[in-house]
Amino acid sequence: MSPTNHQFRLAARPVGLPKRSDFKYTKEPVRDLNAGEVLVKVNYISLDPAMRGWMNEGRSYVPPVGIGEVMRAGAAGRVVASKNDRFAVGDAVTGGMGVQEYAISDGAGLIKVDTRVAPLPVFIGTLGMPGMTAYFGLLEVGQPKAGETVVVSAAAGAVGGVVGQIAKIKGCRAIGIAGGAEKCRYVVDELGFDAAIDYKHEPVVEALRKHCPKGIDVYFDNVGGEILDAALALLARGARVPLCGAISQYNSKGAEGPKNYLSLLINRARMEGFIVFDYASRYQEAAVQMAGWMLAGKLKSREDIVPGLETFPDTLLKLFSGENKGKLVLKVADE
Amino acid sequence: MSPTNHQFRLAARPVGLPKRSDFKYTKEPVRDLNAGEVLVKVNYISLDPAMRGWMNEGRSYVPPVGIGEVMRAGAAGRVVASKNDRFAVGDAVTGGMGVQEYAISDGAGLIKVDTRVAPLPVFIGTLGMPGMTAYFGLLEVGQPKAGETVVVSAAAGAVGGVVGQIAKIKGCRAIGIAGGAEKCRYVVDELGFDAAIDYKHEPVVEALRKHCPKGIDVYFDNVGGEILDAALALLARGARVPLCGAISQYNSKGAEGPKNYLSLLINRARMEGFIVFDYASRYQEAAVQMAGWMLAGKLKSREDIVPGLETFPDTLLKLFSGENKGKLVLKVADE
Repeated sequence: MSPTNHQFRLAARPVGLPKRSDFKYTKEPVRDLNAGEVLVKVNYISLDPAMRGWMNEGRSYVPPVGIGEVMRAGAAGRVVASKNDRFAVGDAVTGGMGVQEYAISDGAGLIKVDTRVAPLPVFIGTLGMPGMTAYFGLLEVGQPKAGETVVVSAAAGAVGGVVGQIAKIKGCRAIGIAGGAEKCRYVVDELGFDAAIDYKHEPVVEALRKHCPKGIDVYFDNVGGEILDAALALLARGARVPLCGAISQYNSKGAEGPKNYLSLLINRARMEGFIVFDYASRYQEAAVQMAGWMLAGKLKSREDIVPGLETFPDTLLKLFSGENKGKLVLKVADE
Repeated sequence: MSPTNHQFRLAARPVGLPKRSDFKYTKEPVRDLNAGEVLVKVNYISLDPAMRGWMNEGRSYVPPVGIGEVMRAGAAGRVVASKNDRFAVGDAVTGGMGVQEYAISDGAGLIKVDTRVAPLPVFIGTLGMPGMTAYFGLLEVGQPKAGETVVVSAAAGAVGGVVGQIAKIKGCRAIGIAGGAEKCRYVVDELGFDAAIDYKHEPVVEALRKHCPKGIDVYFDNVGGEILDAALALLARGARVPLCGAISQYNSKGAEGPKNYLSLLINRARMEGFIVFDYASRYQEAAVQMAGWMLAGKLKSREDIVPGLETFPDTLLKLFSGENKGKLVLKVADE
């Protein structure tokens, strides 16, 4: 008897914040595997700001999720049936499995992970896409040099927290921007940033001026909007601004442009977008490096795990309300 | 008897477009030279959009012109007296001499030029700052590769016209954006661009889409505002956007940010400011290269020469009303 698969499918393109009625909660029996396929029982689903963009009409760096399709998401789970020589029952794997309890894959894009190195949820966090995003965005696009000042927004988030920690490992000063005293405490006391700025309770430009007396050498932007403008105002000469995301803009109709963009001209600085998928051939190298830092106690990983597939539409909103610390993970089933 | 020196001094910081009352037209006798100094009789003054920025309060990449100081400007002239071994009477020179008839210099920043290679005004145009700006901005920041599509705004201007011609020399397609049919004709028929878009009479996004079917690889921005947004909307993957200026913003109070900046993220593109002064040690190399292209008929230089120092405040406005084609030059005295 085949198990039942519960799923969240995209029912409508959200206007503003996604709401429960933008999804349809469906169930269907898991079909039989074809040759070359594997069946994965999903344990953890990765909730990421980028998912909001995938819900919009129109091609971006990936095609949008179609209406009626299972919502796209990264996930981690265990192989429970296999007709593919590369995967055995019991293998722990990560990949784009969607917001559902079971995923069938032909193996492409499925990555085997070793849970002796780190617990399974870490492989969709610090050793997964968010970690890769932080690693390549900071090191390849940001090009930080020892002694420089690195500022990152959404510093208590899955990407931002890793950016600041890698900046410290590379000998930089790391300044985080986050919302609320508790997140700022977390960023400094637990992650080891040099300072944190609470954008909800202090003027960001003044705080940046205080903490970055020689200007900002690398500003890793996860948020856009007013915080991007504040950082641009204080760039040092030759600064780099990796553009990772713009969570302040994802639910608004027209994006707001950075008014201070001419600071790039005056300071001979550059703002540069990147997409982590472009570095796929180097994920392994980054994972080995970051696992080493974790084992050495230099890189901390934190997951904010919320149980219950059926909470998906509401749990997703924690990303946009700024409630979560660390990597937001939806737990679908016990390991 | 020492000659009289007429000068324009900054009298007030302009609000919006500079007007005659923002300057004071003064005269004073030329003082005696000290040891090491040279006296230059100015023939041509370079009028550049950047001058508007120098009139504002607050440090940018150079300090502002002080109230009461002679307005800063590049110029070309002849040495008429010298107490400096490096310069002889009769030498043709260029440098930052200000808006005046005579300049005294200690020789720093004064460049000897050879008028057998090109007429004197060319040395403040295509073989001067605008040409250097086009050369280094396009080649160093824009990094064009043969076969790519290069778009430049203010294409009929002193910088834009050179950018498009160098793009063609490097095997790229060159598309210019300019205001009015006559400028567009000039850009295509005289300068050899592949196409020109008249932003005053056609929708820029649609026209760019037509002329750049594979997207824009390099967008050299001189203007900011809506045209920058239009170009961002059509970037190709991995595009480069050298930021040279933002003439649409110079006379407005708050700059408008590029709403489409997230196109940089989706397309893994970069926007990068530069200041031509940073390449000063390589001006000679660029001038030799560009003079060679001029002699080979591949690079055309055009100057729009307006006579009369006393017309300065009005002639300057031609830059902002978009009246001039090629390099705007104020002629102060016959050679």
